[in-house]
Amino acid sequence: MRILFIGDVVGDKGVSMIHHYLPKLKQTVRPQVTIVNGENATSMGRGITQSIYKQLMSDGVDVVTLGNHAWSNNEILDFIDDAKRLIRPYNYPRRTTPGKGYTMVNVNGVQLAVMNFQGRVFMDPLDDPFALADELVDQIREETNCIFMDFHAEATSEKLAIARYLDGRVSAVVGTHTHVQTNDARLLQGKTAFLTDAGMTGPADGMLGMQPDSVIKRFLDQRPARYKVLETGQGIISGCFIDIDDKSGHATHIETVSMTDDQI
Amino acid sequence: MRILFIGDVVGDKGVSMIHHYLPKLKQTVRPQVTIVNGENATSMGRGITQSIYKQLMSDGVDVVTLGNHAWSNNEILDFIDDAKRLIRPYNYPRRTTPGKGYTMVNVNGVQLAVMNFQGRVFMDPLDDPFALADELVDQIREETNCIFMDFHAEATSEKLAIARYLDGRVSAVVGTHTHVQTNDARLLQGKTAFLTDAGMTGPADGMLGMQPDSVIKRFLDQRPARYKVLETGQGIISGCFIDIDDKSGHATHIETVSMTDDQI
Amino acid sequence: MRILFIGDVVGDKGVSMIHHYLPKLKQTVRPQVTIVNGENATSMGRGITQSIYKQLMSDGVDVVTLGNHAWSNNEILDFIDDAKRLIRPYNYPRRTTPGKGYTMVNVNGVQLAVMNFQGRVFMDPLDDPFALADELVDQIREETNCIFMDFHAEATSEKLAIARYLDGRVSAVVGTHTHVQTNDARLLQGKTAFLTDAGMTGPADGMLGMQPDSVIKRFLDQRPARYKVLETGQGIISGCFIDIDDKSGHATHIETVSMTDDQI
Amino acid sequence: MRILFIGDVVGDKGVSMIHHYLPKLKQTVRPQVTIVNGENATSMGRGITQSIYKQLMSDGVDVVTLGNHAWSNNEILDFIDDAKRLIRPYNYPRRTTPGKGYTMVNVNGVQLAVMNFQGRVFMDPLDDPFALADELVDQIREETNCIFMDFHAEATSEKLAIARYLDGRVSAVVGTHTHVQTNDARLLQGKTAFLTDAGMTGPADGMLGMQPDSVIKRFLDQRPARYKVLETGQGIISGCFIDIDDKSGHATHIETVSMTDDQI
Ligand SMILES: [Fe+2]
Ligand SMILES: [Fe+2]
Ligand SMILES: [Fe+2]
Ligand SMILES: [Fe+2]
Ligand SMILES: [Fe+2]
Ligand SMILES: [Fe+2]
Ligand SMILES: [Fe+2]
Ligand SMILES: [Fe+2]
Repeated sequence: MRILFIGDVVGDKGVSMIHHYLPKLKQTVRPQVTIVNGENATSMGRGITQSIYKQLMSDGVDVVTLGNHAWSNNEILDFIDDAKRLIRPYNYPRRTTPGKGYTMVNVNGVQLAVMNFQGRVFMDPLDDPFALADELVDQIREETNCIFMDFHAEATSEKLAIARYLDGRVSAVVGTHTHVQTNDARLLQGKTAFLTDAGMTGPADGMLGMQPDSVIKRFLDQRPARYKVLETGQGIISGCFIDIDDKSGHATHIETVSMTDDQI
Repeated sequence: MRILFIGDVVGDKGVSMIHHYLPKLKQTVRPQVTIVNGENATSMGRGITQSIYKQLMSDGVDVVTLGNHAWSNNEILDFIDDAKRLIRPYNYPRRTTPGKGYTMVNVNGVQLAVMNFQGRVFMDPLDDPFALADELVDQIREETNCIFMDFHAEATSEKLAIARYLDGRVSAVVGTHTHVQTNDARLLQGKTAFLTDAGMTGPADGMLGMQPDSVIKRFLDQRPARYKVLETGQGIISGCFIDIDDKSGHATHIETVSMTDDQI
Repeated sequence: MRILFIGDVVGDKGVSMIHHYLPKLKQTVRPQVTIVNGENATSMGRGITQSIYKQLMSDGVDVVTLGNHAWSNNEILDFIDDAKRLIRPYNYPRRTTPGKGYTMVNVNGVQLAVMNFQGRVFMDPLDDPFALADELVDQIREETNCIFMDFHAEATSEKLAIARYLDGRVSAVVGTHTHVQTNDARLLQGKTAFLTDAGMTGPADGMLGMQPDSVIKRFLDQRPARYKVLETGQGIISGCFIDIDDKSGHATHIETVSMTDDQI
Repeated sequence: MRILFIGDVVGDKGVSMIHHYLPKLKQTVRPQVTIVNGENATSMGRGITQSIYKQLMSDGVDVVTLGNHAWSNNEILDFIDDAKRLIRPYNYPRRTTPGKGYTMVNVNGVQLAVMNFQGRVFMDPLDDPFALADELVDQIREETNCIFMDFHAEATSEKLAIARYLDGRVSAVVGTHTHVQTNDARLLQGKTAFLTDAGMTGPADGMLGMQPDSVIKRFLDQRPARYKVLETGQGIISGCFIDIDDKSGHATHIETVSMTDDQI
């Protein structure tokens, strides 16, 4: 199967890029399943609402993943338990976190597990993603070898470390969170596809999707500042696609995609 | 002029990549000046020695930049003050830091200023890179418009923020430190070339240059561990080249390079 | 002279403790000058307003210091430049920060300099407090030897380090920010009085002044949560007093004070 | 029973303070059981050796707790599994960490459980101390109500939060790690004794036990520096004692102790 993964969708522009350009991108890439990180999808650039989740699904997305901004919009607490194809990082505290950390998708008769985990280097101290992914992957592999992981993390070392730790046992590990696509898509030795970061989807001319002035001012002033999503200028859609062998779950190809709206 | 910049050189393999492949890469790219980040150049992967510095220079490097690992090998304190083309981040404490943070290179009669700064997000609290770069750039521009900055930093936001802050006043801002090349090389509005991270030079199959087992073990155990440089397998050389207009200092082109030793 | 210093005033309860109990405390301690940290004085527990500042002054406070929460209530930007006895950490960026970082108070004919600095360990990367305090102290000592520093910082090591760095050149270094009073008030070798943290003033039964449930929930959930100030229960007033020799500026005594409202 | 707890023992001086002054302190305090944090007990100030552990035990210590420095001296890996009364933070990764996180001591026929946990704010991302302590306490309470916790943590908020979370279910929560004793010993509402930090034991004139010059230089230079333990000057022994009701496990009294060697 071919999986299309799209990195952090930011603000109205990001949601609009999915609406207008995902269909075109799919015509080129021809994936059997599409996964999108939606942690920044509200018009504030933080969190997701039920209506945005539904719109993404109706625009051709099969699974929505999240990250540290999952909880930035409180509305999520009302609908995440009922949203079948919306997952949040698996390693939030087990006892207190609503929602789930992975989901199974039927892709033309083959089960694909989509997992979401979050890193801990320079981020909140969630539960151990290495130990928990180890356990969860063992459990999932009793059902299917096709496993995709969105690893939402800051540090390049932690992203590559978990990919190598799971190498040969999952089909792909793709990083999110930095909003900048990396140039290192490759197959690891055990046939796990890897990309440090998929990049972002939304305003192309901003500061990781935000208005540059407020972000720069924050660095100059060292005072708290609320960032606003950039609403003008070009849009960009970023991600990657991965081919995996349905039986073995081994990846055979990974390739980045990144296009601005005038290129599509 | 055309500038070739090579990202963090790691260990013996990295130094050897410069020795054997930089000449070949230069034949293709044909730069007038070559800058290399050498903060990981010792066989331990931390710091630099005088003999490595000299070897890099004799292998065709014009300026060596550093980063947070500048001081990991104490020998640097003995020779940095005499090493004309070795610079460390400018924003280390002014009163107590040996060496210098920028240098001028004569490139076929045109002065090129090469500056090295370090970020502060998720890193040590050095002096303010925004305020100091602002001052230094104003001062340098009385001599030349051609200014290259190696911004050694972790966070994508800080790297893009300083580039946009200096946009139009410097020729290029290229990030280092994460050891993973990003896919976002571009000219900003004011004609400053930008790349979030140039990537690394050294062992291609490691964990950012280090042996994977020790790095993964560190994540699994949460106990201190010394990482060792990977000495086997393929090598990689990563960086970018930038064309700048000698008079205006404006960049006209930026493009990444990244090759493994079997590709060259 | 005898200086009374009161640690972080939190919320309405904290302001009310100053109003009702500072006069009684002064009757016991008999200070010539009173300094209060007001970074948490609004009813939200973050920042300060002009009316609270004025109330503190009319309740017998001579100087109000701040900290990392200085900017949490935007109103401060409107009045800090006109508030003569309100100081914020000196080492916020020089170019962009309103207000000032120290002030001179006439204490029965003797000049007392009150400085406010902020640490950088586990906190925002402000300008170097060691380098800047070194300079500022030299400058102030041309006018007076009586110098009090509120060092707003998290790490015990940084607090003691700056005190020892300035030992003999300032009269007292008292820490704030952790909201827990330490038990190490003493004179250093050079006759600088030192206390790692003065503790807080406000609700005694809270979580550093906040409602315990929301703080504990934050640790259990690892999701964002707004803390609210505790409004019920006992109040506490915490700080210390210091005797200094007016001529030499040397401290001769330091002693903590900490009382709940039923004790006073 | 009365428990005597002694905070982080630093270097040779700290071990020597236990040897020479613990007996005298016990004559005054008259505890039935003595617990000591030994994470800094080697002559380097980091980690512990088997011979130091044995000496502490022969000098009258019943249980030795540790912290983030537990692993700084590799020798511990050789003997921790056989050291019955040496515990390390319980919330290090379960799969990979040698040793144990709690132990049971028979105090005149009553079982006392001594637990060691580590915080995560500004520290390594260990497993969740709140969730794990909740479970462990439930399990231990099937055997005994007398439970002492050494919570090794940086942030005052995390220390108080876990104490209040466990309030009424454990006899005492005493913090370590900052090496500065706090002035807030008290009984919480549920009769759990609490002290934010017990302080340190060792060189009294140092920088948390280390030579001041190297620590100050680290702040001035922002370059890596190895700290050395201070070997001269006065010694200090710091901690607290707690009275608990053997049946209910409720604390009835907590009081700090802190003495320099000339005072004892
Ligand atoms: Fe994001
Ligand atoms: Fe994120
Ligand atoms: Fe590096
Ligand atoms: Fe680096
Ligand atoms: Fe505060
Ligand atoms: Fe504060
Ligand atoms: Fe310690
Ligand atoms: Fe510690």
